[in-house]
Amino acid sequence: MTPIITAFEASPDEGQGLARDMPVRWAFEEVGQAYDVRLVSFAAMKEAAHRARQPFGQIPTYEEDGLVLFESGAIVLHIANRRPGLLPENADARARAIAWMFSALSSVEPVVVEREIAFFTERDKPWYAERVPMIEARIRARLGELSRYLGDAEWLDGAFGAGDLMMVTVLRRLSDTDLLEAFSNLAAYVARGEARPAFRRAFEAQHRVFLAASGKA
Amino acid sequence: MTPIITAFEASPDEGQGLARDMPVRWAFEEVGQAYDVRLVSFAAMKEAAHRARQPFGQIPTYEEDGLVLFESGAIVLHIANRRPGLLPENADARARAIAWMFSALSSVEPVVVEREIAFFTERDKPWYAERVPMIEARIRARLGELSRYLGDAEWLDGAFGAGDLMMVTVLRRLSDTDLLEAFSNLAAYVARGEARPAFRRAFEAQHRVFLAASGKA
Repeated sequence: MTPIITAFEASPDEGQGLARDMPVRWAFEEVGQAYDVRLVSFAAMKEAAHRARQPFGQIPTYEEDGLVLFESGAIVLHIANRRPGLLPENADARARAIAWMFSALSSVEPVVVEREIAFFTERDKPWYAERVPMIEARIRARLGELSRYLGDAEWLDGAFGAGDLMMVTVLRRLSDTDLLEAFSNLAAYVARGEARPAFRRAFEAQHRVFLAASGKA
Repeated sequence: MTPIITAFEASPDEGQGLARDMPVRWAFEEVGQAYDVRLVSFAAMKEAAHRARQPFGQIPTYEEDGLVLFESGAIVLHIANRRPGLLPENADARARAIAWMFSALSSVEPVVVEREIAFFTERDKPWYAERVPMIEARIRARLGELSRYLGDAEWLDGAFGAGDLMMVTVLRRLSDTDLLEAFSNLAAYVARGEARPAFRRAFEAQHRVFLAASGKA
Protein backbone atom coordinates (compact mmCIF):
# COMPACT_ATOMS: atom_id res chain seq x y z
CA MET A 1 0.00 0.00 0.00
CA THR A 2 1.20 3.50 -0.78
CA PRO A 3 1.67 5.42 2.48
CA ILE A 4 -0.85 8.17 3.14
CA ILE A 5 0.04 11.29 5.07
CA THR A 6 -2.16 14.13 6.24
CA ALA A 7 -1.45 17.80 5.53
CA PHE A 8 -3.24 21.10 6.02
CA GLU A 9 -6.08 21.72 3.56
CA ALA A 10 -5.15 25.39 3.91
CA SER A 11 -1.68 25.79 5.39
CA PRO A 12 -1.20 28.85 7.59
CA ASP A 13 2.25 29.35 6.03
CA GLU A 14 0.72 30.11 2.62
CA GLY A 15 2.74 27.54 0.76
CA GLN A 16 6.19 28.42 2.10
CA GLY A 17 6.75 24.79 3.03
CA LEU A 18 7.02 25.50 6.74
CA ALA A 19 4.24 23.13 7.82
CA ARG A 20 5.27 19.80 9.21
CA ASP A 21 4.22 17.75 6.23
CA MET A 22 7.21 19.32 4.41
CA PRO A 23 10.01 17.23 6.04
CA VAL A 24 7.92 14.09 5.52
CA ARG A 25 7.34 14.90 1.83
CA TRP A 26 11.06 15.70 1.50
CA ALA A 27 12.02 12.38 3.09
CA PHE A 28 9.72 10.48 0.70
CA GLU A 29 11.35 12.25 -2.24
CA GLU A 30 14.90 11.59 -1.00
CA VAL A 31 14.29 7.83 -0.78
CA GLY A 32 12.08 7.64 -3.89
CA GLN A 33 8.92 6.48 -2.11
CA ALA A 34 5.56 7.42 -3.65
CA TYR A 35 2.96 8.70 -1.19
CA ASP A 36 -0.59 9.96 -1.08
CA VAL A 37 -1.85 12.97 0.84
CA ARG A 38 -5.17 13.43 2.58
CA LEU A 39 -5.87 17.09 3.26
CA VAL A 40 -7.57 18.01 6.52
CA SER A 41 -9.29 21.21 7.58
CA PHE A 42 -8.55 22.93 10.88
CA ALA A 43 -11.94 21.74 12.14
CA ALA A 44 -11.35 18.13 11.11
CA MET A 45 -7.90 18.14 12.78
CA LYS A 46 -9.54 18.66 16.16
CA GLU A 47 -12.20 15.96 15.72
CA ALA A 48 -12.07 12.54 17.32
CA ALA A 49 -11.35 10.65 14.09
CA HIS A 50 -8.14 12.62 13.52
CA ARG A 51 -7.20 12.70 17.21
CA ALA A 52 -7.29 8.90 17.24
CA ARG A 53 -4.34 9.14 14.84
CA GLN A 54 -2.79 12.31 16.31
CA PRO A 55 -3.63 12.92 19.99
CA PHE A 56 -2.69 16.61 19.75
CA GLY A 57 -4.88 17.34 16.74
CA GLN A 58 -2.02 18.24 14.42
CA ILE A 59 -0.58 17.19 11.07
CA PRO A 60 1.14 15.17 9.70
CA THR A 61 0.08 11.60 10.31
CA TYR A 62 1.35 8.55 8.42
CA GLU A 63 -0.68 5.48 7.58
CA GLU A 64 0.44 2.33 5.83
CA ASP A 65 -0.92 -1.21 6.06
CA GLY A 66 -2.50 -0.68 9.44
CA LEU A 67 0.44 1.23 10.94
CA VAL A 68 -0.46 4.72 12.11
CA LEU A 69 2.29 7.14 13.14
CA PHE A 70 2.48 10.78 14.12
CA GLU A 71 5.30 13.28 14.85
CA SER A 72 7.21 14.45 11.80
CA GLY A 73 10.53 13.35 13.29
CA ALA A 74 9.25 9.83 13.91
CA ILE A 75 7.74 9.61 10.42
CA VAL A 76 10.96 10.79 8.77
CA LEU A 77 12.93 8.24 10.81
CA HIS A 78 10.47 5.49 9.83
CA ILE A 79 10.82 6.39 6.14
CA ALA A 80 14.62 6.52 6.52
CA ASN A 81 14.66 3.12 8.22
CA ARG A 82 12.70 1.47 5.41
CA ARG A 83 14.58 2.67 2.35
CA PRO A 84 18.20 3.70 1.75
CA GLY A 85 19.10 7.31 1.14
CA LEU A 86 18.73 9.12 4.44
CA LEU A 87 20.70 7.06 6.96
CA PRO A 88 24.20 5.57 6.56
CA GLU A 89 24.70 1.80 6.60
CA ASN A 90 27.40 2.04 9.29
CA ALA A 91 25.74 1.62 12.70
CA ASP A 92 27.71 4.37 14.45
CA ALA A 93 27.16 6.88 11.65
CA ARG A 94 23.48 5.93 11.68
CA ALA A 95 23.21 6.62 15.42
CA ARG A 96 24.90 10.00 14.94
CA ALA A 97 22.52 10.95 12.11
CA ILE A 98 19.57 10.09 14.36
CA ALA A 99 21.15 12.18 17.13
CA TRP A 100 21.10 15.17 14.78
CA MET A 101 17.41 14.56 14.11
CA PHE A 102 16.71 14.73 17.85
CA SER A 103 18.99 17.73 18.12
CA ALA A 104 17.10 19.65 15.43
CA LEU A 105 13.79 18.94 17.14
CA SER A 106 14.82 19.15 20.81
CA SER A 107 17.70 21.63 20.97
CA VAL A 108 17.09 24.00 18.05
CA GLU A 109 13.40 23.99 17.16
CA PRO A 110 11.99 25.00 20.58
CA VAL A 111 14.32 28.03 20.69
CA VAL A 112 13.26 29.02 17.17
CA VAL A 113 9.55 28.40 17.66
CA GLU A 114 9.41 30.52 20.82
CA ARG A 115 9.57 33.56 18.52
CA GLU A 116 6.51 32.36 16.59
CA ILE A 117 4.59 31.55 19.76
CA ALA A 118 5.28 35.06 21.08
CA PHE A 119 4.07 36.56 17.80
CA PHE A 120 0.86 34.57 17.75
CA THR A 121 -0.03 34.94 21.42
CA GLU A 122 1.65 38.13 22.70
CA ARG A 123 2.11 40.59 19.86
CA ASP A 124 -0.63 42.83 21.29
CA LYS A 125 0.90 42.77 24.79
CA PRO A 126 2.80 45.76 26.18
CA TRP A 127 5.88 43.62 26.85
CA TYR A 128 6.15 42.15 23.34
CA ALA A 129 8.72 44.69 22.11
CA GLU A 130 10.97 43.95 25.07
CA ARG A 131 10.55 40.16 24.91
CA VAL A 132 11.38 39.74 21.22
CA PRO A 133 15.06 40.76 21.61
CA MET A 134 15.40 38.35 24.55
CA ILE A 135 14.04 35.52 22.42
CA GLU A 136 16.21 36.50 19.47
CA ALA A 137 19.30 36.56 21.67
CA ARG A 138 18.60 32.94 22.61
CA ILE A 139 18.13 32.04 18.94
CA ARG A 140 21.44 33.76 18.02
CA ALA A 141 23.26 31.94 20.81
CA ARG A 142 21.98 28.58 19.61
CA LEU A 143 22.72 29.39 15.96
CA GLY A 144 26.22 30.48 16.97
CA GLU A 145 26.87 27.10 18.58
CA LEU A 146 25.53 25.25 15.56
CA SER A 147 27.53 27.48 13.20
CA ARG A 148 30.77 26.84 15.10
CA TYR A 149 30.12 23.11 14.97
CA LEU A 150 29.29 23.06 11.25
CA GLY A 151 32.31 25.19 10.34
CA ASP A 152 32.96 24.83 6.63
CA ALA A 153 31.51 21.32 6.38
CA GLU A 154 28.82 20.71 3.79
CA TRP A 155 26.54 18.70 6.07
CA LEU A 156 26.47 17.96 9.82
CA ASP A 157 28.12 14.54 9.69
CA GLY A 158 29.51 13.42 6.35
CA ALA A 159 26.96 12.85 3.60
CA PHE A 160 23.52 14.49 3.61
CA GLY A 161 21.12 12.55 5.80
CA ALA A 162 18.00 12.59 7.95
CA GLY A 163 19.69 14.83 10.53
CA ASP A 164 20.37 17.49 7.91
CA LEU A 165 16.85 17.13 6.56
CA MET A 166 15.39 17.93 9.98
CA MET A 167 17.92 20.67 10.79
CA VAL A 168 17.39 22.49 7.48
CA THR A 169 13.64 22.16 8.03
CA VAL A 170 13.94 23.83 11.44
CA LEU A 171 16.29 26.59 10.25
CA ARG A 172 13.94 27.44 7.37
CA ARG A 173 11.50 28.74 10.00
CA LEU A 174 13.88 31.71 10.27
CA SER A 175 13.68 32.49 6.53
CA ASP A 176 11.52 35.57 7.07
CA THR A 177 13.97 37.03 9.60
CA ASP A 178 17.54 38.33 9.40
CA LEU A 179 18.71 35.97 12.15
CA LEU A 180 20.58 33.62 9.82
CA GLU A 181 22.46 36.47 8.14
CA ALA A 182 25.16 36.64 10.81
CA PHE A 183 25.93 32.96 10.24
CA SER A 184 26.85 32.70 6.58
CA ASN A 185 27.74 29.01 6.82
CA LEU A 186 24.27 28.22 8.19
CA ALA A 187 22.58 30.32 5.49
CA ALA A 188 24.59 28.43 2.87
CA TYR A 189 23.72 25.12 4.57
CA VAL A 190 20.01 25.90 4.35
CA ALA A 191 20.43 26.95 0.71
CA ARG A 192 22.19 23.64 -0.06
CA GLY A 193 19.28 21.77 1.46
CA GLU A 194 16.73 23.78 -0.49
CA ALA A 195 18.66 23.20 -3.72
CA ARG A 196 18.32 19.43 -3.50
CA PRO A 197 16.02 18.05 -6.22
CA ALA A 198 14.08 16.06 -3.60
CA PHE A 199 13.47 19.24 -1.60
CA ARG A 200 12.28 21.06 -4.74
CA ARG A 201 9.82 18.28 -5.61
CA ALA A 202 8.46 18.23 -2.05
CA PHE A 203 8.22 22.00 -1.99
CA GLU A 204 6.33 22.12 -5.28
CA ALA A 205 3.93 19.42 -4.13
CA GLN A 206 2.95 21.30 -0.97
CA HIS A 207 2.89 24.60 -2.87
CA ARG A 208 0.35 23.19 -5.32
CA VAL A 209 -1.94 22.48 -2.35
CA PHE A 210 -1.70 26.14 -1.32
CA LEU A 211 -2.37 27.36 -4.86
CA ALA A 212 -5.42 25.10 -5.17
CA ALA A 213 -6.74 26.15 -1.75
CA SER A 214 -6.32 29.83 -2.55
CA GLY A 215 -7.94 29.52 -5.99
CA LYS A 216 -4.67 30.42 -7.71
CA ALA A 217 -4.15 27.09 -9.44
CA MET B 1 33.82 -1.16 26.62
CA THR B 2 31.37 0.06 29.22
CA PRO B 3 29.56 3.14 27.87
CA ILE B 4 30.47 6.42 29.55
CA ILE B 5 27.99 9.23 29.91
CA THR B 6 28.46 12.75 31.19
CA ALA B 7 26.34 14.32 33.91
CA PHE B 8 26.40 17.53 35.95
CA GLU B 9 29.04 17.62 38.68
CA ALA B 10 26.54 19.78 40.58
CA SER B 11 23.05 19.44 39.12
CA PRO B 12 20.92 22.58 39.31
CA ASP B 13 17.91 20.40 40.19
CA GLU B 14 19.52 19.40 43.52
CA GLY B 15 19.17 15.69 42.98
CA GLN B 16 15.51 15.60 41.92
CA GLY B 17 16.46 13.59 38.84
CA LEU B 18 15.29 16.29 36.44
CA ALA B 19 18.60 16.68 34.60
CA ARG B 20 18.91 14.97 31.26
CA ASP B 21 21.25 12.24 32.40
CA MET B 22 18.24 10.79 34.25
CA PRO B 23 16.42 9.24 31.23
CA VAL B 24 19.72 7.83 30.00
CA ARG B 25 20.51 6.27 33.39
CA TRP B 26 16.93 4.94 33.52
CA ALA B 27 17.28 3.39 30.05
CA PHE B 28 20.54 1.68 31.05
CA GLU B 29 18.82 0.25 34.12
CA GLU B 30 15.77 -0.97 32.16
CA VAL B 31 17.92 -2.96 29.72
CA GLY B 32 20.48 -4.06 32.34
CA GLN B 33 23.48 -2.29 30.80
CA ALA B 34 26.29 -1.20 33.12
CA TYR B 35 27.60 2.33 32.53
CA ASP B 36 30.16 4.78 33.82
CA VAL B 37 29.62 8.46 34.50
CA ARG B 38 32.05 11.32 34.03
CA LEU B 39 30.95 14.39 35.95
CA VAL B 40 31.48 17.78 34.35
CA SER B 41 31.41 21.25 35.85
CA PHE B 42 29.44 24.12 34.31
CA ALA B 43 32.73 25.66 33.19
CA ALA B 44 33.99 22.44 31.58
CA MET B 45 30.66 21.96 29.76
CA LYS B 46 31.29 25.14 27.80
CA GLU B 47 34.89 24.32 26.87
CA ALA B 48 36.04 23.10 23.47
CA ALA B 49 36.75 19.53 24.60
CA HIS B 50 33.16 19.02 25.73
CA ARG B 51 31.67 20.98 22.85
CA ALA B 52 33.42 18.62 20.43
CA ARG B 53 31.13 15.97 21.89
CA GLN B 54 28.12 18.22 22.54
CA PRO B 55 27.96 21.30 20.27
CA PHE B 56 25.55 23.10 22.61
CA GLY B 57 27.67 22.62 25.73
CA GLN B 58 25.15 20.48 27.57
CA ILE B 59 24.91 17.07 29.20
CA PRO B 60 24.53 14.14 28.67
CA THR B 61 26.92 12.72 26.12
CA TYR B 62 27.45 9.02 25.41
CA GLU B 63 30.75 7.41 24.45
CA GLU B 64 31.44 3.81 23.60
CA ASP B 65 34.16 2.30 21.42
CA GLY B 66 34.73 5.48 19.47
CA LEU B 67 31.06 6.33 19.04
CA VAL B 68 30.12 9.70 20.51
CA LEU B 69 26.45 10.67 20.80
CA PHE B 70 24.50 13.53 22.32
CA GLU B 71 20.81 14.34 22.86
CA SER B 72 19.12 12.33 25.60
CA GLY B 73 16.42 11.11 23.21
CA ALA B 74 18.99 9.83 20.72
CA ILE B 75 21.01 8.15 23.47
CA VAL B 76 17.94 6.44 24.93
CA LEU B 77 16.98 5.23 21.44
CA HIS B 78 20.52 3.94 20.86
CA ILE B 79 20.45 2.04 24.16
CA ALA B 80 16.98 0.69 23.32
CA ASN B 81 18.14 -0.44 19.87
CA ARG B 82 21.07 -2.40 21.29
CA ARG B 83 19.40 -4.40 24.04
CA PRO B 84 15.87 -5.71 24.53
CA GLY B 85 13.60 -4.18 27.13
CA LEU B 86 12.57 -0.78 25.83
CA LEU B 87 11.30 -1.38 22.29
CA PRO B 88 8.94 -4.11 21.06
CA GLU B 89 10.14 -6.72 18.57
CA ASN B 90 7.21 -6.05 16.23
CA ALA B 91 8.27 -3.44 13.66
CA ASP B 92 5.03 -1.46 13.74
CA ALA B 93 4.89 -1.38 17.54
CA ARG B 94 8.54 -0.34 17.54
CA ALA B 95 7.84 2.58 15.18
CA ARG B 96 4.95 3.68 17.40
CA ALA B 97 7.11 3.57 20.54
CA ILE B 98 9.70 5.73 18.80
CA ALA B 99 6.92 8.12 17.75
CA TRP B 100 6.04 8.56 21.43
CA MET B 101 9.68 9.38 22.18
CA PHE B 102 9.60 12.15 19.58
CA SER B 103 6.21 13.23 20.89
CA ALA B 104 7.50 13.59 24.45
CA LEU B 105 10.45 15.68 23.27
CA SER B 106 8.80 17.68 20.46
CA SER B 107 5.14 18.09 21.41
CA VAL B 108 5.15 18.01 25.21
CA GLU B 109 8.55 19.09 26.52
CA PRO B 110 8.77 22.51 24.80
CA VAL B 111 5.37 23.48 26.23
CA VAL B 112 6.45 22.35 29.70
CA VAL B 113 9.92 23.91 29.57
CA GLU B 114 8.57 27.31 28.54
CA ARG B 115 7.48 27.74 32.17
CA GLU B 116 11.03 27.10 33.41
CA ILE B 117 12.56 29.43 30.82
CA ALA B 118 10.19 32.19 31.92
CA PHE B 119 11.14 31.61 35.55
CA PHE B 120 14.86 31.73 34.87
CA THR B 121 14.86 34.68 32.47
CA GLU B 122 11.76 36.78 33.26
CA ARG B 123 10.76 36.37 36.87
CA ASP B 124 11.93 39.89 37.66
CA LYS B 125 10.03 41.38 34.72
CA PRO B 126 6.79 43.33 35.25
CA TRP B 127 4.91 41.05 32.86
CA TYR B 128 5.91 37.76 34.53
CA ALA B 129 2.74 37.47 36.63
CA GLU B 130 0.58 37.88 33.55
CA ARG B 131 2.62 35.55 31.34
CA VAL B 132 2.71 32.58 33.71
CA PRO B 133 -1.04 31.86 33.45
CA MET B 134 -0.78 32.02 29.64
CA ILE B 135 2.02 29.47 29.70
CA GLU B 136 0.19 27.29 32.19
CA ALA B 137 -2.94 27.36 30.03
CA ARG B 138 -0.90 25.94 27.15
CA ILE B 139 0.54 23.27 29.44
CA ARG B 140 -2.97 22.33 30.66
CA ALA B 141 -4.26 22.12 27.09
CA ARG B 142 -1.44 19.78 26.10
CA LEU B 143 -1.83 17.67 29.26
CA GLY B 144 -5.57 17.46 28.58
CA GLU B 145 -4.94 16.03 25.13
CA LEU B 146 -2.43 13.54 26.47
CA SER B 147 -4.77 12.61 29.31
CA ARG B 148 -7.67 11.96 26.92
CA TYR B 149 -5.44 9.79 24.79
CA LEU B 150 -4.05 7.77 27.70
CA GLY B 151 -7.50 7.21 29.22
CA ASP B 152 -7.29 4.35 31.68
CA ALA B 153 -4.42 2.60 29.93
CA GLU B 154 -1.34 1.77 31.96
CA TRP B 155 1.17 2.92 29.32
CA LEU B 156 0.93 4.84 26.04
CA ASP B 157 0.99 1.85 23.70
CA GLY B 158 0.83 -1.59 25.28
CA ALA B 159 3.80 -2.56 27.43
CA PHE B 160 6.11 0.02 29.05
CA GLY B 161 8.71 1.21 26.58
CA ALA B 162 11.07 3.97 25.49
CA GLY B 163 8.16 6.28 24.67
CA ASP B 164 6.84 6.01 28.22
CA LEU B 165 10.34 6.50 29.62
CA MET B 166 10.68 9.81 27.77
CA MET B 167 7.12 10.95 28.45
CA VAL B 168 7.33 10.25 32.20
CA THR B 169 10.70 12.05 32.22
CA VAL B 170 9.12 15.13 30.65
CA LEU B 171 6.03 15.11 32.89
CA ARG B 172 8.22 14.88 35.99
CA ARG B 173 9.35 18.43 35.26
CA LEU B 174 5.90 19.44 36.52
CA SER B 175 6.36 17.66 39.86
CA ASP B 176 6.82 20.91 41.77
CA THR B 177 3.58 22.37 40.36
CA ASP B 178 -0.10 21.52 40.74
CA LEU B 179 -0.53 21.22 36.97
CA LEU B 180 -0.77 17.43 36.93
CA GLU B 181 -3.39 17.36 39.69
CA ALA B 182 -6.30 17.98 37.31
CA PHE B 183 -5.27 14.93 35.29
CA SER B 184 -5.34 12.04 37.73
CA ASN B 185 -4.54 9.45 35.07
CA LEU B 186 -1.36 11.34 34.13
CA ALA B 187 -0.34 11.72 37.78
CA ALA B 188 -0.84 7.96 38.23
CA TYR B 189 1.09 7.31 35.00
CA VAL B 190 4.06 9.30 36.29
CA ALA B 191 3.85 7.49 39.63
CA ARG B 192 3.88 4.12 37.83
CA GLY B 193 7.01 5.15 35.98
CA GLU B 194 8.69 6.34 39.17
CA ALA B 195 7.81 3.07 40.91
CA ARG B 196 9.72 0.94 38.42
CA PRO B 197 12.82 -0.63 40.00
CA ALA B 198 14.97 0.61 37.10
CA PHE B 199 13.76 4.17 37.69
CA ARG B 200 14.54 3.88 41.39
CA ARG B 201 18.07 2.65 40.73
CA ALA B 202 18.70 5.45 38.26
CA PHE B 203 17.24 8.01 40.63
CA GLU B 204 19.40 6.83 43.52
CA ALA B 205 22.53 6.90 41.34
CA GLN B 206 22.04 10.53 40.31
CA HIS B 207 20.95 11.45 43.84
CA ARG B 208 24.22 10.13 45.24
CA VAL B 209 26.05 12.56 42.93
CA PHE B 210 24.06 15.42 44.42
CA LEU B 211 24.71 14.27 47.97
CA ALA B 212 28.44 13.97 47.30
CA ALA B 213 28.59 17.37 45.61
CA SER B 214 26.73 19.04 48.45
CA GLY B 215 28.85 17.37 51.11
CA LYS B 216 25.87 15.42 52.46
CA ALA B 217 27.16 11.98 51.55
